Amino acid sequence: MAHDTTPAELDRVCTAAAGAAAGFAALPLAERAELLRTIAAKLRENGVAIIAAADAESHLGLPRLTGELERTCVQLELFAAAVEAGTFLEVIIDHADPAAKPAPRPDLRRMLVPLGPVAVFAASNFPLAFSVAGGDTASALAAGCPVVVKAHPGHPETSQLVAAILAEVLPDGVFALVEGFTAGQALVGHPAITAVGFTGSLAGGQALLDLVNARETPIPFYGELGALNPAIVTPAALADRRDEIVTGFVGSFTMGSGQFCTKPGLLFLPAGHGLDEALGAAAAAATTGQLLTENIQKGYEQGLTRFASAPGVRSLAGPAPALFAVAAGDLRGELLDECFGPAALVVEYQSPEELFATVRDLPGSLTATAHLGGSDELAPALLPLLAGIAGRVIVNGWPTGVAVTAAMQHGGPWPAATTSLYTSVGETAVRRFLRPVAFQNVPDALLPPALQESNPLDIPRRVS
Amino acid sequence: MAHDTTPAELDRVCTAAAGAAAGFAALPLAERAELLRTIAAKLRENGVAIIAAADAESHLGLPRLTGELERTCVQLELFAAAVEAGTFLEVIIDHADPAAKPAPRPDLRRMLVPLGPVAVFAASNFPLAFSVAGGDTASALAAGCPVVVKAHPGHPETSQLVAAILAEVLPDGVFALVEGFTAGQALVGHPAITAVGFTGSLAGGQALLDLVNARETPIPFYGELGALNPAIVTPAALADRRDEIVTGFVGSFTMGSGQFCTKPGLLFLPAGHGLDEALGAAAAAATTGQLLTENIQKGYEQGLTRFASAPGVRSLAGPAPALFAVAAGDLRGELLDECFGPAALVVEYQSPEELFATVRDLPGSLTATAHLGGSDELAPALLPLLAGIAGRVIVNGWPTGVAVTAAMQHGGPWPAATTSLYTSVGETAVRRFLRPVAFQNVPDALLPPALQESNPLDIPRRVS
Repeated sequence: MAHDTTPAELDRVCTAAAGAAAGFAALPLAERAELLRTIAAKLRENGVAIIAAADAESHLGLPRLTGELERTCVQLELFAAAVEAGTFLEVIIDHADPAAKPAPRPDLRRMLVPLGPVAVFAASNFPLAFSVAGGDTASALAAGCPVVVKAHPGHPETSQLVAAILAEVLPDGVFALVEGFTAGQALVGHPAITAVGFTGSLAGGQALLDLVNARETPIPFYGELGALNPAIVTPAALADRRDEIVTGFVGSFTMGSGQFCTKPGLLFLPAGHGLDEALGAAAAAATTGQLLTENIQKGYEQGLTRFASAPGVRSLAGPAPALFAVAAGDLRGELLDECFGPAALVVEYQSPEELFATVRDLPGSLTATAHLGGSDELAPALLPLLAGIAGRVIVNGWPTGVAVTAAMQHGGPWPAATTSLYTSVGETAVRRFLRPVAFQNVPDALLPPALQESNPLDIPRRVS
Repeated sequence: MAHDTTPAELDRVCTAAAGAAAGFAALPLAERAELLRTIAAKLRENGVAIIAAADAESHLGLPRLTGELERTCVQLELFAAAVEAGTFLEVIIDHADPAAKPAPRPDLRRMLVPLGPVAVFAASNFPLAFSVAGGDTASALAAGCPVVVKAHPGHPETSQLVAAILAEVLPDGVFALVEGFTAGQALVGHPAITAVGFTGSLAGGQALLDLVNARETPIPFYGELGALNPAIVTPAALADRRDEIVTGFVGSFTMGSGQFCTKPGLLFLPAGHGLDEALGAAAAAATTGQLLTENIQKGYEQGLTRFASAPGVRSLAGPAPALFAVAAGDLRGELLDECFGPAALVVEYQSPEELFATVRDLPGSLTATAHLGGSDELAPALLPLLAGIAGRVIVNGWPTGVAVTAAMQHGGPWPAATTSLYTSVGETAVRRFLRPVAFQNVPDALLPPALQESNPLDIPRRVS
């Protein structure tokens, strides 16, 4: 049923979004929250049809998609609660101080306000939770911004089912779905668009970033581009938990057929680990399904060829899931490009010094994991290195599974994301779509309710 | 004494900054704060020499520069206090919740960490407060980032005096000064640089933004580029306070010879205001001094020519200060380009509808001001429009004078700034140089002190 959105249609929905922005921004927070909750409720109501469409289009299976729909709904409800709590407005009030040094100070009240229409590019690998009503859309709506979603071509029917619910619930102009490659390009260049959220490949994100950079008016581009997600096993951890590490690692990198941006693509083991056989057997025993799209399948096969032909690489299992091993000294070049799908690389280090030097120079990642032993002597040096290259540092766990919560950080230094300053998952994701405004000596009755002296919204505020 | 920094010198200081980053980031917050306070103390100790150099180079006069040095020191001390308070770390702690829906939740602790070396481009118009030890440098150091400053060629001696203090106080590698146009270009392209702060012209900012966009690794570019800073006088305000408005406006746009990025460049008056003579006389009576640089003088003269030759513009005073008037219907094209220096434009509106439509379409600005009467019927519609185009909304005041405080917002929609999401003045300016990291199931002893369960730093934290 998908058809490419025409340039005229694209302009119409973007212009409508711009026209709807002020009214949507001005809705009372309680009403904004209620809209998010209504969307969640209607997604659940239509869950059977949505999940069936998503399964037909993504092959991800009913159990996974049932969980993903619930995650999508819970995420909308989390943002609804955050909207009502009002912490995200980051209100700061400095009362006037005629005696302030070096100069008298006026009454200044700062809050965050919505940017305006946001373009969201849906991801292929989460047809619900990172798609039409996913995290980017939910956080932009929570921020008070209209949203224009570019549908992912991998699940057009699912996209339209979900889009119909959003369009029905939200005020006119606040939501629209557009389809087609050309429409996506035009979308990021449209003057009405004030920010872009994207989840996808490095190549796709880079291409859109170039288009954004060519705009006359600069806007922020939030691209979440995937990562290597290194997991480091120290000698002490290996001595403690050999079997558990093998099982946990293989389970994590093959989960969802390896189609998670948090898939652990690198496993650092001390040289001489003696796990070739156990890892190969565990990988061979893991089941993976059909990949999401033909493009992803093609990219996966190219990745395997890249791994197999790199100097010093040996194969432990394959082709799906696929596992390779290489010495840390040979970890370079194309081995540092993400291979989306059920493939991973074991990296063998000779010494703590070699481990630290290799980790320090890794590309930016969404996550970095340490498997430690008790009172592990490597830990104090290792953990700051991991925090230096990643947005989330995990100890004695695996990176797949991203909790939707206030303290989550899903992002990281380039090329994990186009900017490391934000998260695309969790409550603080709304900050991407907000800008501060300070009100100076504005009479109380003319202030936004969030800033009025009596605090009528009863929200947390920092008052000097 | 200025000499152009060579490519080899530039590479050396950037590499040294990268090498010093981890150590500087790891300093206890109290030590970081103490460094900022020591810089302030040494600036005051050397105030006589610094102010004399700045006056010789900028012609701004001793009273203004004495105040500006104190402002610079107070700003460093404000950031020192903010560092100790720790609010800027934005700590959020979600304890583990095995019963969480839709999935059990791990222990997650989020804080902000420094980005790494920051490049700062000093401004010409504040040789102290927006220069080598100015707001960008102070906020980057407060965030825990090394700083490489590109000196402004308008005040090389002042820059070197201040740089010597910073280099003496800060750990090796944490601060450096570079000089010369080519060095500035190379600086924003250097792989060690993780963010850029800039205060200057739209043309200069656009040129640097293009260089930043051409980098292999994207980094944020925070350019504060100046603005029109419209001030709107309603009919009710004009009826109340004619003389006060004339005096206040002329005082504000001629202050510091109009060389403030917050200079009110547009004054909206109801048509038939009858103030031509009063405004012309007040402007003619105002004194302005030598402009900061030959380039600024040249740009000012070009601006006057641009104004004078635009259709429908009449002159009320000039050439310095210069005041012009035009009907709102003729406000377009080059009249919407900032003219840096003591020039402004009166814009005459026929009706509230014409006022609102004109204001809605103005370019983004640092500030927008409303002069209102008591219970002004235009206020409820006007103030949201002003918040839509500016970072700071002022009622019954003038935009010059920027308080350095927690609630200040100095920034705004393009072209006031390259990104509207941040402020370059006030406590929250540090957020530009920080990124979030979440720590998942990390043993307490291995967590940064800010995240440890006992809260050893005694900082504000949001705990689930």
